[in-house]
Amino acid sequence: MERIERLRQLMRYKSLDYVFLMKPLSIFYFSGDYVTGVLYISYEDCILFVRRPKERVLLTELKVEYMDSFRDLKSCLGSLHGKAGLELDSIPYSLVMKLTEALELHEFENISHEIRLVRMVKDPLEVEKIRQAGAIAASTFLHVESIFAEGMSEQDLLIELDYFAKKLGNLGIYRMHSYGNEASFSHILQGEDALFSSYFDAPTGGPGISAAFPQGASKKVIEKSKPFTVDITINYDGYISDATRTFIFGKSDEHFMKVWAGLESVFAYLCELMVPGAIPEEIYLKVIKYVDSLGFSNVFMGRGRDRVKFIGHGTGLEVDEYPFIAKGFNLPIEENSILAIEPKFISEEFGIAGIEDTFLVTKNGPISLIPLGSHLVEL
Amino acid sequence: MERIERLRQLMRYKSLDYVFLMKPLSIFYFSGDYVTGVLYISYEDCILFVRRPKERVLLTELKVEYMDSFRDLKSCLGSLHGKAGLELDSIPYSLVMKLTEALELHEFENISHEIRLVRMVKDPLEVEKIRQAGAIAASTFLHVESIFAEGMSEQDLLIELDYFAKKLGNLGIYRMHSYGNEASFSHILQGEDALFSSYFDAPTGGPGISAAFPQGASKKVIEKSKPFTVDITINYDGYISDATRTFIFGKSDEHFMKVWAGLESVFAYLCELMVPGAIPEEIYLKVIKYVDSLGFSNVFMGRGRDRVKFIGHGTGLEVDEYPFIAKGFNLPIEENSILAIEPKFISEEFGIAGIEDTFLVTKNGPISLIPLGSHLVEL
Repeated sequence: MERIERLRQLMRYKSLDYVFLMKPLSIFYFSGDYVTGVLYISYEDCILFVRRPKERVLLTELKVEYMDSFRDLKSCLGSLHGKAGLELDSIPYSLVMKLTEALELHEFENISHEIRLVRMVKDPLEVEKIRQAGAIAASTFLHVESIFAEGMSEQDLLIELDYFAKKLGNLGIYRMHSYGNEASFSHILQGEDALFSSYFDAPTGGPGISAAFPQGASKKVIEKSKPFTVDITINYDGYISDATRTFIFGKSDEHFMKVWAGLESVFAYLCELMVPGAIPEEIYLKVIKYVDSLGFSNVFMGRGRDRVKFIGHGTGLEVDEYPFIAKGFNLPIEENSILAIEPKFISEEFGIAGIEDTFLVTKNGPISLIPLGSHLVEL
Repeated sequence: MERIERLRQLMRYKSLDYVFLMKPLSIFYFSGDYVTGVLYISYEDCILFVRRPKERVLLTELKVEYMDSFRDLKSCLGSLHGKAGLELDSIPYSLVMKLTEALELHEFENISHEIRLVRMVKDPLEVEKIRQAGAIAASTFLHVESIFAEGMSEQDLLIELDYFAKKLGNLGIYRMHSYGNEASFSHILQGEDALFSSYFDAPTGGPGISAAFPQGASKKVIEKSKPFTVDITINYDGYISDATRTFIFGKSDEHFMKVWAGLESVFAYLCELMVPGAIPEEIYLKVIKYVDSLGFSNVFMGRGRDRVKFIGHGTGLEVDEYPFIAKGFNLPIEENSILAIEPKFISEEFGIAGIEDTFLVTKNGPISLIPLGSHLVEL
């Protein structure tokens, strides 16, 4: 109920009289049950209207009603006056219209931003789940060293790691807030493959193995003496960690070691800045300036017009949560936020180099939830 | 361009002047490129406005423009008069508002149904991809016999089959049209686990291994002499097959063999009815009547209020395509439609029994795209 109280505070701030949540993930966050239906929240009341499942024991402590159509809400709630909040960034237009027409809601506003704000700060149980996800990620990176063999393609390695991570408890579902984006288990990319950007709003794209899912690993065999990155998303009990390590089959040359040292210093600088109260936009601009001073501006965070405009993002139930380390994101970083920080260099010269860790922000600075060093691994 | 012409016919029928597609999967279907942005279609013109990726060679033969915001569409298209079609069942409310405000579109209608109609009939290339998906499904079912061992849990078996199917080319992404639904690779269920319904609108639910993803296999060890079902979704190059087989570790008893014979006869009866021109609602009602005559009404297609109201569904780029074998679906079945037919019995007595095949509808009747018999397999 503490989560609902936090939402109510934001409802007051927006002068909303009630909120209707229809995104199953939001319903899960506030009720504890992953169901379809509507979660109704006013200042006095909170009712979970379940469309499906009706024949399963629910976990929630909230009041439950069953519904078939929005008319059932109307019968239960009667005539509502005032202003409603709806998740307009997620709910399809026709579903919003059906709900608002059935309930004769004439005034409604977008509550998507506020829901993300409530979810931005994690409670100890959420932190623990992301810590578990991070532990699976660390084991999976170590597994690369156990199984890598000459002749393996990016896709071969991906399949082996996917199998391994699932055995450790990875749920294999990677939810995102942003419409049109699709996260996947892993981007494993080397050389030219790292130069492909994709529809997915991330620094790496990749060719993928199908035009219908054009991101991530290809069937190209991993070559000697060229770095490749393994970016891994793990979902443990609903909660996501995001991490990247860079590997090289054989020895890296001196030139790349300079690039790598540059990347490590950007990563270290970023970590220094991640303290409660820091403004993400200011962090972003400082890092951009620092990268520029090192001479890596041209290869930082993607290619040309597809360069992404963030260098870190919150994670939790979704892989693109608040806060974003990005221009325009001005809410100070809060204690108990969880962020993935992902400086990446992509270039025609060396392909790719990247480090990513998921961090818990504490008053003493960020603590990595990926229990594994982020050095370059020679295989 | 033939697909676009089919859409234009439906646009004429609805008196639409143009269509704006923003769902990446629709853009892919009509353009050949999986990108984010807007596909603009009028009777004279067709322009793919790409938001992302901008630095990747596209496959499409359509005219391409690049966009950062909807204002770029306005600059390119100028003032538009008349009525627009938008995918209102899929596109979030706020995105629809942003587009229509930027373009000053005052009149717009839902085109979701028409897009699904265009996609309902498959061309030879699409059929071939679903045939490949079906071949992977068949091999994966055979793999159950190779790897099943005493002591395996539903989840253990799921992970092994997932790994095997990915090695054969399964993309591991299971897209759905319906908001709030999430398809996954496999439901493997036995006994009590089959009695769990879930948020997912399917005859089977399952406990899953997390409250955050409460569907599918649990960690319960597969028991002797009790049937269990393996429902497998395969995505090959964007296209999905859906199939279910029933297994039993050891021998089945006589009573269950009677249940199984009943299920087989329902499946056979359903197949007989799947001819071009048949009305899905009529098929549905006939089958319901037939199931009733066999005495299986109480266990057919789910439990109590969570019983699903369909016994078959189209598949293609999504797992819930047109047509549906359901009450209220009155469009005749067309040649070259592809449907998954899935009679399932769920009961406290024996747990579960199910058969599902993905069929191509031809003028000579349905042809299974799952090259494997659907008999009960004793392990």
